[in-house]
Amino acid sequence: MKKIDHIAIAVKNLNQSQDLFSKILNKDPDKTEEIKEQDVRVCFYKLNNVKIELVESINKKSVISKFIEKRGEGLHHISFEVNDIENEKRRLIDLGFEILETSSKGANKTKVCFINPKQTNGVLIEMNEINS
Amino acid sequence: MKKIDHIAIAVKNLNQSQDLFSKILNKDPDKTEEIKEQDVRVCFYKLNNVKIELVESINKKSVISKFIEKRGEGLHHISFEVNDIENEKRRLIDLGFEILETSSKGANKTKVCFINPKQTNGVLIEMNEINS
Repeated sequence: MKKIDHIAIAVKNLNQSQDLFSKILNKDPDKTEEIKEQDVRVCFYKLNNVKIELVESINKKSVISKFIEKRGEGLHHISFEVNDIENEKRRLIDLGFEILETSSKGANKTKVCFINPKQTNGVLIEMNEINS
Repeated sequence: MKKIDHIAIAVKNLNQSQDLFSKILNKDPDKTEEIKEQDVRVCFYKLNNVKIELVESINKKSVISKFIEKRGEGLHHISFEVNDIENEKRRLIDLGFEILETSSKGANKTKVCFINPKQTNGVLIEMNEINS
């Protein structure tokens, strides 16, 4: 069975949003990280084994920048942990899903892929192989 | 510390979305429920102690119906479990947050309130007292 790894929120200004969510969640973020391959800076809040991830674009070409331009700040994707990303991709393709991005590097150097959100009620779903 | 209780996804047709998410998550929903007070029908998938909730409107006046009209289907809110909803409301109000709806009945007859998403980077955040 799958496990929810994190929920990502696209924000314009990570420092400001970090202050905001630290108040709401009543705790400081557990980690801040820059992911150059994706042109983003992120911070994580760990809550009962699931993370809330705030994501700021550090480049106007990034998908986060385009998302905010189109829809504004807000919930961006859900990430599920899978044991084997290649197996999961094959399983999803066999079910008729289109995989948007394959085995790119996510936060913590995990392997990730996405399902086309046009096929999933507008929800961007990430599959994430953590121990790779 | 807070715990993530569920992530809600607004959908047009619960039966179709249930088929879809059962494929993606590789499991059947754990529960289906109608919440008349909120004019919605929901189903839950439990994954590592956090639920994915699919929410369908059963009335055009519902907030879900208005959300879908405006933004389309997609991620709708994150719900955090709190021990005492009245304490949490006071804490948030003292921090300057506006509470949108107070102690209304959520799924499983829990007490819920929301923070104005204009104050939270566009993310609708629910606080949820489970054992009431």
